[in-house]
Amino acid sequence: MKPRRLSSGILLPSGFLFAGAAAGLKKAGGLDLGLIEAPAGTAAAAVFTTNRVVAAPVAVGRLHLRAAGGRVRAVIINSGNANCATGPRGLRDCLRVCEQVAESLGESRERVFPSSTGVIGVPLPAHRLLAALPRLLRGRRASPAALRQFARAIMTTDTRPKLASVRFRYSGSVAVLTGVAKGAGMIHPQMATMLVYLFTDIAATPAELRRCLRPAAARTFNRISVDGDTSTNDTVLLLASGSTGAHHPERKSKGGAHAHRRPAPADRRRFIAALEAVCASLAEQIVADGEGVQHLVRLRVEGARTEAEAQQVARTIANSSLVKTAWAGADPNWGRILAAVGRSSVPVDPSRIDIFLGAQQVCRQGAACAFDERRAHRTLSQRHFDVSVRLGRGRAAASFLTCDLTADYVRVNASYRS
Amino acid sequence: MKPRRLSSGILLPSGFLFAGAAAGLKKAGGLDLGLIEAPAGTAAAAVFTTNRVVAAPVAVGRLHLRAAGGRVRAVIINSGNANCATGPRGLRDCLRVCEQVAESLGESRERVFPSSTGVIGVPLPAHRLLAALPRLLRGRRASPAALRQFARAIMTTDTRPKLASVRFRYSGSVAVLTGVAKGAGMIHPQMATMLVYLFTDIAATPAELRRCLRPAAARTFNRISVDGDTSTNDTVLLLASGSTGAHHPERKSKGGAHAHRRPAPADRRRFIAALEAVCASLAEQIVADGEGVQHLVRLRVEGARTEAEAQQVARTIANSSLVKTAWAGADPNWGRILAAVGRSSVPVDPSRIDIFLGAQQVCRQGAACAFDERRAHRTLSQRHFDVSVRLGRGRAAASFLTCDLTADYVRVNASYRS
Repeated sequence: MKPRRLSSGILLPSGFLFAGAAAGLKKAGGLDLGLIEAPAGTAAAAVFTTNRVVAAPVAVGRLHLRAAGGRVRAVIINSGNANCATGPRGLRDCLRVCEQVAESLGESRERVFPSSTGVIGVPLPAHRLLAALPRLLRGRRASPAALRQFARAIMTTDTRPKLASVRFRYSGSVAVLTGVAKGAGMIHPQMATMLVYLFTDIAATPAELRRCLRPAAARTFNRISVDGDTSTNDTVLLLASGSTGAHHPERKSKGGAHAHRRPAPADRRRFIAALEAVCASLAEQIVADGEGVQHLVRLRVEGARTEAEAQQVARTIANSSLVKTAWAGADPNWGRILAAVGRSSVPVDPSRIDIFLGAQQVCRQGAACAFDERRAHRTLSQRHFDVSVRLGRGRAAASFLTCDLTADYVRVNASYRS
Repeated sequence: MKPRRLSSGILLPSGFLFAGAAAGLKKAGGLDLGLIEAPAGTAAAAVFTTNRVVAAPVAVGRLHLRAAGGRVRAVIINSGNANCATGPRGLRDCLRVCEQVAESLGESRERVFPSSTGVIGVPLPAHRLLAALPRLLRGRRASPAALRQFARAIMTTDTRPKLASVRFRYSGSVAVLTGVAKGAGMIHPQMATMLVYLFTDIAATPAELRRCLRPAAARTFNRISVDGDTSTNDTVLLLASGSTGAHHPERKSKGGAHAHRRPAPADRRRFIAALEAVCASLAEQIVADGEGVQHLVRLRVEGARTEAEAQQVARTIANSSLVKTAWAGADPNWGRILAAVGRSSVPVDPSRIDIFLGAQQVCRQGAACAFDERRAHRTLSQRHFDVSVRLGRGRAAASFLTCDLTADYVRVNASYRS
């Protein structure tokens, strides 16, 4: 959906404190430790990677959310190390870090939610994290500067922080939803991708949040792809503080953190729209900042029998190395798109397939049609462009956001660890 | 299987004539038209791409083989244009070329088997092919030089011709099997890949050839991958002239082209071994000459429940952009291999997975184990190296041949048409 109501500035949702610090996990000494503190009773919902290999923080995060009945008091995130394939030691390291954060806040360990991102298979230098925690905690603030520092601390190969905010009416107050993400590589849509943290000040139960988060993630984060690889650490976490209005001094909070009234249908609709708008913006920012990305491609597959079929075709195109390298060269080589459709395992009839580059049709009924090559090249030279494919099988459609595959992607990933 | 009995030189199977010519399809003016003439009655079997989008020559080749009862008199191949997504005109163009070859040989059109390789979606300049045919036909010879010229004529982005030969005992004579292939891009195992022509001088029925060719292709060409894309033109064609002994003047041919006796079990075994040896050599040559390839990687997946499961895991690793770019940098980043195994859709237990780079174990029971990084880097710096993964689920295994993903692959494919 269109993020129509996205705010141009970044808004601070009431009740949350943010911090970022350098713990010495990144070689260059950059920010690599991020903290969110939420008011007591903050409700949470999360979706995780579908990879069978999961990092220690994913296992611990799942466990903690369940044990705490969907309540989160703090989130602690490190970049520079994924704490994945680190065995029992990795789990112990993750628990120790959570424990120390919990102690500092006078909270139980289960209410601390951990995340990690970075290299796989290297033990987490937990002592560095533990040593940096006091400094990190001291720095926590409810300020835009602190939020931006947090957004920088969770970056790996990202070239810029990713934030999105929206303001919406909820239960008679003005509520805020703000999201922060990190992406760059290992991006492939499999029910939750990358690290995404969403904060809102509405009052909601964990169950309500879960009901809203799953479809929003499915329609945004699961419709993007950078390289077809699914990470072991992917996490999308949504927190609702219940402090609505606190940022709006003329209004008094009507709910508070523990208000569990069912939302009015109109409120619920506005919240879902806000959630999808923020998720869609973050998803787009993630692809746009994918490793080595020069072009952002909006794929639209129409005329499928089912939406799943349309998605299957879109994913096959989005992950074809040959299609993606042609895009890197702004080459209107639509034959590679047709070949990808043909191997998508959807039983297409090639003689019914139409392909468009931008507004221009380049393939009609499975065959070349006369088109202006220079215009097509100009279309593909733009930073953003559209590619659409019509299958001629039915009325279902799906959109998908992807990018080109450049020599820079190879460069970034050939020497990621060195 | 090991190509133990592969000949170091290229042998000429009896009865076949070869030619290569420049018809002006390639921009640089190189050889782009190849011809094979086989003796009357030569038996044939073929496997084709599983892509739903197929080029005109694949459709015509299938039709001709069926119409001629599996008999082929000539094969006509052009590079520089795939004649795919060219609609009814593409079919007409293909049929016209076959017709003219057939007329020149006094044969019916159905006994001419066509292939094309090159760019998709550009009409075949059939007039250039037709104009070059007389010259091509005049140049046909039963000589190693003509065979090499043919092998060059079917190349696209290949940097070198691909040939393999084996000599084997068959029905009291010495028989020869020689194969020629072109590969380079769009290489992904889906029941027949790329263009491969196999010639033998044994006498065999089309049905016998089919029975031997399918499993040989499945065990060789379907176990390799360059980029995960399946071409619209993939074809493997096996021809048996029945002229055994003709190249061996001291022996008289016992069979002849029309001998349809069932082969003795020992002969059949030797033929199948020869076929697999030649196919395995060509498959390896194709990966080794993949676009931009710097490293050739022998993947071995063991401890699977079924061979299909082992193959599924191997394919996921072989097509992971992140794994392949790490290989390009000789980076022992085994975490990416583990992550690929985790998303392969095989229900693995991560805590049972072992990974080896060369002979050195780098991951034990899903977690990092102490290993010599420099030794691992040396292993991955070699042109050929082995990677093995043990799943700890059962006793089935599969091997797979793949390569790294380099900036050169991107360069070659970003400007393929320009």
